Amino acid sequence: MKRRQVLAGLGAGAVALAGCGREQPAAGADSPASPAKPAETFNWKMVTTWPPNFPGTGASATLLAETINRASAGRIRVQVYAAGELVPPFEVFNAVSAGAAEIGHGVSYYWKAQVEAAQFFGAIPFGMTPAESSAWLHYGGGMELWRELYEPFGVMVFTGGNTGTQMGGWFNREINSPDDLKGLKMRIPGLGGEVLQRAGGTPVMLPGGEIYTAMQTGSVDATEWVGPYNDVGFGLHEVAQYYYYPGWHEPGAILEVSINQEAWDALPEDLQQVVKSACGYVESLMGAEYSARNAQFLQQLRNEGKVEIRPFPDSVIAELRLRSQEVIDELVARDENAARIYASYTAFQQQVNEWLDIGERAAVAARG
Amino acid sequence: MKRRQVLAGLGAGAVALAGCGREQPAAGADSPASPAKPAETFNWKMVTTWPPNFPGTGASATLLAETINRASAGRIRVQVYAAGELVPPFEVFNAVSAGAAEIGHGVSYYWKAQVEAAQFFGAIPFGMTPAESSAWLHYGGGMELWRELYEPFGVMVFTGGNTGTQMGGWFNREINSPDDLKGLKMRIPGLGGEVLQRAGGTPVMLPGGEIYTAMQTGSVDATEWVGPYNDVGFGLHEVAQYYYYPGWHEPGAILEVSINQEAWDALPEDLQQVVKSACGYVESLMGAEYSARNAQFLQQLRNEGKVEIRPFPDSVIAELRLRSQEVIDELVARDENAARIYASYTAFQQQVNEWLDIGERAAVAARG
Repeated sequence: MKRRQVLAGLGAGAVALAGCGREQPAAGADSPASPAKPAETFNWKMVTTWPPNFPGTGASATLLAETINRASAGRIRVQVYAAGELVPPFEVFNAVSAGAAEIGHGVSYYWKAQVEAAQFFGAIPFGMTPAESSAWLHYGGGMELWRELYEPFGVMVFTGGNTGTQMGGWFNREINSPDDLKGLKMRIPGLGGEVLQRAGGTPVMLPGGEIYTAMQTGSVDATEWVGPYNDVGFGLHEVAQYYYYPGWHEPGAILEVSINQEAWDALPEDLQQVVKSACGYVESLMGAEYSARNAQFLQQLRNEGKVEIRPFPDSVIAELRLRSQEVIDELVARDENAARIYASYTAFQQQVNEWLDIGERAAVAARG
Repeated sequence: MKRRQVLAGLGAGAVALAGCGREQPAAGADSPASPAKPAETFNWKMVTTWPPNFPGTGASATLLAETINRASAGRIRVQVYAAGELVPPFEVFNAVSAGAAEIGHGVSYYWKAQVEAAQFFGAIPFGMTPAESSAWLHYGGGMELWRELYEPFGVMVFTGGNTGTQMGGWFNREINSPDDLKGLKMRIPGLGGEVLQRAGGTPVMLPGGEIYTAMQTGSVDATEWVGPYNDVGFGLHEVAQYYYYPGWHEPGAILEVSINQEAWDALPEDLQQVVKSACGYVESLMGAEYSARNAQFLQQLRNEGKVEIRPFPDSVIAELRLRSQEVIDELVARDENAARIYASYTAFQQQVNEWLDIGERAAVAARG
């Protein structure tokens, strides 16, 4: 949208923008199109789903804010709030939708109660890897579907990267067969939790900050969190015996940058590009960070040798895959948006897989 | 570097900056730190190694320029030149180093004659995939080594993304055993070319624009280029019988954004961030674009059914892998920079692989 259009539109809608961090220029604003006049500044509150100073995803939210602030020379001033500081973690989407915050940082499955189909833009059990989902979002119609889904909520959305394939989780019970899932009390959110339930387990929803204690006291038998980097940071290796892989429930977790639509529309074209570029910038770094740091912390865990790192048995994977398909089929049957998005998701996944099989995966195999 | 420092330094070095696109502000420049004064503008020439209007890599160079121009509200004005318009494709690095152009877009192996070790920042036979090399560059010390390597040339460097794993190439001869590589005349640049030579073939160096005719007239028996997306765009499927995979010679090709150091230092901090963000933005899109488009064009080739898509036999891969190691070992033995970079490269590749094996690759296998 062009700056002049936005400004023209503001005459009528200025009241609605009261909560959107807009500041009138101090002087010389009679000709706002001239870059030589004092620029308007935009004060944005960024609410996030991450604990304070959380490495990886939390640091990425901070980097996003700093990048916007620096590239805009302070014309946008984003201030970051950790989970709970301004709103509870799972209220981020509502806060951005209502304009209580201009920008949010989290993962879409945290607001599945409000928008169930949003889960396709977070993580899908046995679904796309980070590279696959990035291709779908940017060049397979995914972003368009995501924006369409959030439009009724007055939310503009970008992706802020991906945490990579997660680990299966930390367990204090051995999982040798599908029977061992029965009665398992595990912290696992989203669709993965529904799958576990259907396999006989009891999914528990806990914010990150409460996981350690829940494992320590035995109030849960198992928990998933992210991967070695974040998990070791939380000390989960101190309270579990087994570390299972792969992360069947989150083969990739897409990060969401949500922006209040009116706050977005109020930005001039150059600042919109500043925000857009900043999202791409953090996206380009996040996958790299998780690959590098997960590798490093995995090695540390192996060197320490206190935790047993094991694959789920094939029979367990087969059971979870079957239950996942049931859960997704039912979601798709009851929600039109989910059906439309899933059709795009699966068609894209199939096509891109045929390429990756003879491209990247064949190249990896050739290395011997 | 802070804006004031740069400006202070300019008093002495203004002559050296004559070729760096710097324009003095028209008025009100007495206090350049104030954002309210007319901003200095920077006219940058971007030289590239890509044919005019080339999809993928060429389009990405254009997008990079547009992104910088838009986010800076025209304070930086980058104009893009295709290969040959201002300098020949393989002269991009020299032009940026000499300050004849402020910014360049290409792949580092094109200037191996000037900086042999730069090839580690392009593509290495049987080397890292895009995700692996991105992790190495951003969080494994790769970017630091790259910048150190280019420092003596007065060149600052960023990555502009990755074209993904390439295909093995287009052949008009069947490759059934290592013997079939003997006498093979193939367009293949960089280290891959050296490997082919050692396996008995004849590597030929041709810019993209000359490949089609060379294949059509039979002046080469085979050619690699990129992958289905770019290859079909060049019409290579019309002039070859076989399309071999995998791209053992380029499991990922890193794109290079080179910037003349004086031009970089002359930018105020906000515009440096604008350029940095823009590089990350195009990086986040490029891998996605190549995955999506390669998948699409591969399907088209399969549907047309005119070209036979085949894997190299294991014996050929084994021979090429052996020769690749010889070529790299010799490079490392004769070039100190190569030795230092290769040590970092291999250590990182090994560590990140241990993670990807139980992370992403195990998750892909679990999908069945």
